[in-house]
Amino acid sequence: MPKNALYAQSGGVTAVINASACGVIDAVRAHPAHFGTCFAARDGILGVLREEIIDLDQEDPLTLAALRHTPGGAFGSCRFDLGDPERDPRQYQRLVEVFRAHDIGYFFYNGGGGSMDTALKVARIGDLMGYPITAVGVPKTIDNDLDATDTSPGFGSAAKFIATVVREASLDVESMHTSSTRVFLLEVMGRHAGWLAAAAALAQEYDGQPPMLILFAEIPFDQQKFLHHLHLTIERHGYCVVVVSEGLKESDGTLFAVAQSHDVYAYTQLGGAAPRLADLIKRETGHKLHWAVVDYIQRAARHLASKVDVDQAYAVGKAAVEGVVAGHHSFMPVIRRQTSVPYRWSIDRVPLERVANIERSMPREFISPDGYGITQACRDYLRPLIEGEDCPPFENGLPCYPRIRGVLRPKRCPEFTIGTD
Amino acid sequence: MPKNALYAQSGGVTAVINASACGVIDAVRAHPAHFGTCFAARDGILGVLREEIIDLDQEDPLTLAALRHTPGGAFGSCRFDLGDPERDPRQYQRLVEVFRAHDIGYFFYNGGGGSMDTALKVARIGDLMGYPITAVGVPKTIDNDLDATDTSPGFGSAAKFIATVVREASLDVESMHTSSTRVFLLEVMGRHAGWLAAAAALAQEYDGQPPMLILFAEIPFDQQKFLHHLHLTIERHGYCVVVVSEGLKESDGTLFAVAQSHDVYAYTQLGGAAPRLADLIKRETGHKLHWAVVDYIQRAARHLASKVDVDQAYAVGKAAVEGVVAGHHSFMPVIRRQTSVPYRWSIDRVPLERVANIERSMPREFISPDGYGITQACRDYLRPLIEGEDCPPFENGLPCYPRIRGVLRPKRCPEFTIGTD
Repeated sequence: MPKNALYAQSGGVTAVINASACGVIDAVRAHPAHFGTCFAARDGILGVLREEIIDLDQEDPLTLAALRHTPGGAFGSCRFDLGDPERDPRQYQRLVEVFRAHDIGYFFYNGGGGSMDTALKVARIGDLMGYPITAVGVPKTIDNDLDATDTSPGFGSAAKFIATVVREASLDVESMHTSSTRVFLLEVMGRHAGWLAAAAALAQEYDGQPPMLILFAEIPFDQQKFLHHLHLTIERHGYCVVVVSEGLKESDGTLFAVAQSHDVYAYTQLGGAAPRLADLIKRETGHKLHWAVVDYIQRAARHLASKVDVDQAYAVGKAAVEGVVAGHHSFMPVIRRQTSVPYRWSIDRVPLERVANIERSMPREFISPDGYGITQACRDYLRPLIEGEDCPPFENGLPCYPRIRGVLRPKRCPEFTIGTD
Repeated sequence: MPKNALYAQSGGVTAVINASACGVIDAVRAHPAHFGTCFAARDGILGVLREEIIDLDQEDPLTLAALRHTPGGAFGSCRFDLGDPERDPRQYQRLVEVFRAHDIGYFFYNGGGGSMDTALKVARIGDLMGYPITAVGVPKTIDNDLDATDTSPGFGSAAKFIATVVREASLDVESMHTSSTRVFLLEVMGRHAGWLAAAAALAQEYDGQPPMLILFAEIPFDQQKFLHHLHLTIERHGYCVVVVSEGLKESDGTLFAVAQSHDVYAYTQLGGAAPRLADLIKRETGHKLHWAVVDYIQRAARHLASKVDVDQAYAVGKAAVEGVVAGHHSFMPVIRRQTSVPYRWSIDRVPLERVANIERSMPREFISPDGYGITQACRDYLRPLIEGEDCPPFENGLPCYPRIRGVLRPKRCPEFTIGTD
């Protein structure tokens, strides 16, 4: 009897992570000689530890198919890292206990660089604990900071949303600037890498159009230089659209949002590079301004997904399973770009070691010499990733996002307390 | 020879104000026996005072047609109120000077309640200054606070965007809540009226899904009661989505964002009910949370416009012109609802006096008894306004929004300094 397969989602979710789930589920079911049943853990690796195993055979096939156009993590995600197996074998014994109880031989973990480390640790359980498990990663991150792949599913759709709303809001500011708002700030995600901020530049149809200034996580903030460029931009265009990475840093490496907070607030504030920057600009220039923070909205905006991104999300899920069928293990499918115009890509594999806990920043040659824009090379890289529309169905004016039933398999193992206690 | 028509945009722009421009331009051109040429003022009434009159005959007809799907104010908008004609006749003399120089006999002003006051003042120029001008308002506001109309163009599209992104981001929070974010805050526009906050409730498919607390501009903030409801919601559902009007007020009428700032900041901050509320929740509950502020994005999101809204925006522009042809003046077209299911509406007219400087709040019976949600009556009212999709064309993955050339007519009047000096 072939062993069962277990799929789980990890880390910050995206508009297309469920499309990867579809790819995994469809491919597992397409290979009945190789796999038993396809299960999903609730809330990532936590669901394995808690023995919360969703029985996908209890789901309506139409619902599972509709996950391809549904944002969020349908099975629940988690932010949780497994401990060191040498120092804390308890978690690993538990994983084996649960895997064995449900006859699980294949584990597909859908996440970013940190989650690939978890997948790698699970992959080593065979050697460590004598229980054979094939563990494979499925890439996902809106931050685009996974290494060794042309891009990561989730990024293209977030990039398309950001470029679209920047183009739209810029038309708004342009309308208002002679008697009202002169500066519009948008804060986008990206703790360590400025890929999403860079994507805003796709809103430009030609040079000089908004966004005029981008503040990347990779380029330390220089207040005087920034205010000078802001001044020049407003003199020339009458207004300025600024896009700022949440991960913008001061020259000493402190987060801009935190450093600015310490200056003026009684206690450390929650994030918010945009309101901090708004305070600074207001104080130093007196310009009327507006600011926006898109936060989760940018990574959940399935209504505006990139078709390329949806296709790639499904493809990496399918490739993870097909790689296993072909005899591979401990790998993550990656996207290889053949050509940019037209965008041609294929799927390859890299070992989990190659991507676990590694973060890819923007190359300096993708950022313009002055540090506030992107180069043609970056534009050529980004443009194909937002191509094509893939609208979800709408009903009563809103997108339809079905929910899974999430019926859990009966528990067979004793209770388990998570933690290092 | 028939007199020329002048169209202008005023106040905060919307995703569909340019559709109203199309309606006006098309209808003026359809009645050559009644109107001469159709002009547009740059930046609203300021463009009239400055004699910045855009010659629409210099625009590509395809560009003008494409305004129907282009957000922002294509001709520029302004925040500017005319002074009292008795005390400051200078501005009115100037208006007459410019109207006369360009043979303008018809003025169509596209804006909200404040702009209708401007339209009314222009309408009275005939009596006051002896220059006959027919002035008509065209309704517009995302705040939905214009009186005497079922809704105002701009609101439906902003409402659809808000409900959509709340539905999407809620799925994200639901995925994350067991090991990470438990509260998601979204700040929406609405200085005095909570209509946009109410629209977020359309994201709910059935009662309590997603679990949501709405903080309306109309209901004074009660910290203890709010924290209690937040606690109950998280206990029951594991997470909570909070939607807050930027115009949320304390019981003494102070803006929440401002009042909270005074407590903890060294000086008065820019707006930001969401970050202030985030601080409060973090301090009082310790829950991990995320917050977003959509600001201009919500009113510029033409990529997700409501078809009903676009149709109504065009219709009120057309009706403004056709009302004039039928011999009416000093009016604003309004939308009358015949039935909600299916949504049937028609266009009527009200005198400008009926709508100038009047703000419509949410009726109390539209807000649930506990103050944190909407009633069925409100849902029935809102639902039709977001119906239907009306996608702009996309190219290279982004919506195409053409720009007008904006060629100004040669100036015929002396320079003029705006202001009450």
